[in-house]
Amino acid sequence: MNGFDRSIPFADRIADRVRETGSRLVVGLDPVVERFPSTVAELPIEEALVGFCQGILEAVRDEAAAVKPQVAFFERHGWLGMRALVRVVEIAQKMGIPVIADAKRGDIGSTAEAYAEAFLGEESGTPGPFVDALTVNPYLGSDSLEPFLKRVREGGRGLFVLARTSNPGGSEIQCRPEDPLPVFRQVARAASGWGAGSKGACGYHGVGLVAGATFPEELAQIRHDAPRSWLLIPGVGAQGGDINALRTAFDGEGLGGLVNSSRGVIYATAQGSQEWTEAVAEAARRTRQAIDEGVLN
Amino acid sequence: MNGFDRSIPFADRIADRVRETGSRLVVGLDPVVERFPSTVAELPIEEALVGFCQGILEAVRDEAAAVKPQVAFFERHGWLGMRALVRVVEIAQKMGIPVIADAKRGDIGSTAEAYAEAFLGEESGTPGPFVDALTVNPYLGSDSLEPFLKRVREGGRGLFVLARTSNPGGSEIQCRPEDPLPVFRQVARAASGWGAGSKGACGYHGVGLVAGATFPEELAQIRHDAPRSWLLIPGVGAQGGDINALRTAFDGEGLGGLVNSSRGVIYATAQGSQEWTEAVAEAARRTRQAIDEGVLN
Repeated sequence: MNGFDRSIPFADRIADRVRETGSRLVVGLDPVVERFPSTVAELPIEEALVGFCQGILEAVRDEAAAVKPQVAFFERHGWLGMRALVRVVEIAQKMGIPVIADAKRGDIGSTAEAYAEAFLGEESGTPGPFVDALTVNPYLGSDSLEPFLKRVREGGRGLFVLARTSNPGGSEIQCRPEDPLPVFRQVARAASGWGAGSKGACGYHGVGLVAGATFPEELAQIRHDAPRSWLLIPGVGAQGGDINALRTAFDGEGLGGLVNSSRGVIYATAQGSQEWTEAVAEAARRTRQAIDEGVLN
Repeated sequence: MNGFDRSIPFADRIADRVRETGSRLVVGLDPVVERFPSTVAELPIEEALVGFCQGILEAVRDEAAAVKPQVAFFERHGWLGMRALVRVVEIAQKMGIPVIADAKRGDIGSTAEAYAEAFLGEESGTPGPFVDALTVNPYLGSDSLEPFLKRVREGGRGLFVLARTSNPGGSEIQCRPEDPLPVFRQVARAASGWGAGSKGACGYHGVGLVAGATFPEELAQIRHDAPRSWLLIPGVGAQGGDINALRTAFDGEGLGGLVNSSRGVIYATAQGSQEWTEAVAEAARRTRQAIDEGVLN
């Protein structure tokens, strides 16, 4: 796959990729210069970001169902970082690795339209042409998602709407005990309506949900409420989520869930004379196997 | 004022600015090339964005309490747009106009820290050094706000947390009729805790709230729940909010509220031989007067 065929819905593209690679692992690209191998860290910032991420992409290309660049770690370096992001997602697309841009944007009206254009559009100099799917924040309601949903229905793109985030404070709004219906369940129940018109042959549609591994009971509720949404699951590894508790997210074919790991893979420590990229490839292999053992057996 | 003195809390800097200019108007910078005057629109994109915004800044410098660049309209043009944003906020700071970056960012842990660095940090090539305050999204809870709050307490910056947005769909999560406590009121009640350690001599602290003009009753509840937060009020003009209903946001000195207008000011139509910047200045003057008449009498 070179680039992506917009006539194939995102849900099917990601299903095909899972079948091809046999992997349910999403590798998060969270570039932090202080943690780069020294040969990369000493480059000027834009080259360091691109060099590090390119090394990761090459190391995980056969091990990852998708990569998830975390936009904040690029934006933190200003316009040079954003230029690096565009280069990184273009490289990923050329390698045939689906890109989930983790930007968690959310705004209204023409502003939401401008974010949709930035991340799911076609303008040169933006990540848009190279992004398969985007994370968005639902706090501003359905109308705020519409410019993104249009690109799901008509452009073959995907979305992952934040339902239940993996951090402790996420409960404050998403899951208040006194609410008749927790907010995260309302979001999950809305997903199939948002996904109308984007369903693929695989049975899933283009509007996925973010569901933290750190709250397995709620993950199961989300799967129940949104049976045809791809679930993007952060929070395993450093954040303490247990892979064995994620089985509920997957169907009988092992589709429906994507498990994210970022720092546990991309900052794997090289042993002895090992290249840093070999350590990354090994960590990715180990992590995807652990996911398979946890969720498929 | 050239740049800003970080030893003065944001709440006091904005209070001083309101007193100096006598204005409670925030001018939103929503640059949309298709609406630019032709002399600006024909420039290369980065120069067009900077040229348009510089024209606005010069036109409104004595009429605006602050300016609010909407980051999406820059990000939509990729890294060139982000470089334009950095130039625009630097120009605003040199003119002594406070800058509220409208980015509505929200994420967790080290990712939130990276966004805080991008928008409230010091790295060259980012907007950070030139931004007085930032809008953020509370969906991910208090821990997600902490990296931003640290810069409020220690760095003299300000925040505006989304409470009640001005769009119809905002009600879906922020104000569900069946919830014992609507989410927007929970956010408002949390503001004084978030603002601890950032209170200024003016009586307000550094954690403001976004409260749409389109829901005046809820604006009054937010003022009640968060008596010491600056309220950033969008939704007058095009969105239909009535200025007269905003009185409740302001204290006896006419402080505590900032009313945003974007397109109604920056795309004012020039009459006859008038320069476009004259039309903008006139629209800003008219709008600030309308605000004063609505909220002070």
